[in-house]
Amino acid sequence: MTWQVNKTTLNIVKIKGDKIIRTVDEIVQEVPVTLFLNGKEFVTMVCSPEGLEELAVGFLCSEGLLQTPNDLKELTVDYENGIIYVEAAEGDSEAKFLKRNITSCCGRGRPVFYFVNDAKSMNKVTAQLLVTPGQVWDLSDRLEEMSVLFKQTGGVHNAALCAPTEVILFYEDVGRHNAVDKIFGRAFLNRIPLEDKILVFSGRVSSEIVIKVGKMGLPVIISRSAPTNLGIEMAEKLGITVVGFAKGERMNVYTYPERILG
Amino acid sequence: MTWQVNKTTLNIVKIKGDKIIRTVDEIVQEVPVTLFLNGKEFVTMVCSPEGLEELAVGFLCSEGLLQTPNDLKELTVDYENGIIYVEAAEGDSEAKFLKRNITSCCGRGRPVFYFVNDAKSMNKVTAQLLVTPGQVWDLSDRLEEMSVLFKQTGGVHNAALCAPTEVILFYEDVGRHNAVDKIFGRAFLNRIPLEDKILVFSGRVSSEIVIKVGKMGLPVIISRSAPTNLGIEMAEKLGITVVGFAKGERMNVYTYPERILG
Repeated sequence: MTWQVNKTTLNIVKIKGDKIIRTVDEIVQEVPVTLFLNGKEFVTMVCSPEGLEELAVGFLCSEGLLQTPNDLKELTVDYENGIIYVEAAEGDSEAKFLKRNITSCCGRGRPVFYFVNDAKSMNKVTAQLLVTPGQVWDLSDRLEEMSVLFKQTGGVHNAALCAPTEVILFYEDVGRHNAVDKIFGRAFLNRIPLEDKILVFSGRVSSEIVIKVGKMGLPVIISRSAPTNLGIEMAEKLGITVVGFAKGERMNVYTYPERILG
Repeated sequence: MTWQVNKTTLNIVKIKGDKIIRTVDEIVQEVPVTLFLNGKEFVTMVCSPEGLEELAVGFLCSEGLLQTPNDLKELTVDYENGIIYVEAAEGDSEAKFLKRNITSCCGRGRPVFYFVNDAKSMNKVTAQLLVTPGQVWDLSDRLEEMSVLFKQTGGVHNAALCAPTEVILFYEDVGRHNAVDKIFGRAFLNRIPLEDKILVFSGRVSSEIVIKVGKMGLPVIISRSAPTNLGIEMAEKLGITVVGFAKGERMNVYTYPERILG
């Protein structure tokens, strides 16, 4: 397994009109990684092989298993075998997580009560951040400029943690959720304050993405793509501004436009 | 909950340069649906609220829980509450599925041994189908033409089951995997022979998508987007032709180009 490179090269056949070209092309890497929590196999994810610490921590933050910096005791990555070992404070969160997922898990989707309970137990984001339309377009342009792996391979999503005028963290991943979890994980590890930050994202703003944004406590998500109705409903409840299709001097503001319009 | 419509309308703020326009826009619907298998809650998926029979059946086919038409005893959809009830022949597949998923489930990703074991137990696709480059571009164009919901909302992926010169089934879904499962489910329900068919797809060709294509026994997948290296590796093992970036008189053929070049 080749680790810590996000792409590989392969012999392929390119067809352009009536020309057939045998050539070498760059392909995005996708690897399975298994997370062990307190000695037990916990979850396997398919991801880009970079930022595995961030991914593990962000995933556990998203699932409520890490809440304060003291909850994380130890973090070890075995790159060769694709295994991440996390030692975390034992709370009731793990039991709750397992209870919630064993009945209705497997590979995608979350239980219905996930939505209801998670949204209920989350605090509404009340931060008064202001991001001007010009800043929104600048950040969206910056995300695209930084998306080198996407330009090379076309196979990843991108996420950046930003202040209104600067990019602080940036990740690319074959998985839409992973890119956001890596942001969450690095912000947790570096103890970056989030109430005055923005998530800038290439992917669709679905309910699961909005829940992650709410758990981070970010007041604004800016996407170059579309939201879903459930994503918007949840953002409405959680006090989050959702901006979609932010590119080329255009954007749609779906919730809490006062953070954009002033 | 509004069912059997794939989009809804919302009041939004559109910003174009220095113009601020308060308007109504179309947003793609995303709903949670819970599948009960033989009376037990089995999985909850977030999906577009259309083709739920297909989704349930395709999901169970993908997971190996439905293998022959006789395995499916009864299928009932409660649209109002978002619940699908399936009665299926009790085999050892269900136990295997649960064993496989309980240790390492939850929301995304699959266990490592999923890949290994699934690929090992699957038959190599040996069908000799030939699809000319012109037919590839025609099918890719047809997929795009049919993607009405995507054009309206930007929030879905599309999948079509095709013969070299015609589209047989077409689905749009907020979930990349769901669109493919709906194809699988309808093909299973209608007993459509698959060894001479093609999956035409808007999304990335990751390992999980290739496994579904292999389980369907389709010899070719054509995508308008990129593959991952793990997707290509698996297609190589399973005898599947992977075509990516198929649009505008261009395409890349990653595996088994003889089905395209003749």
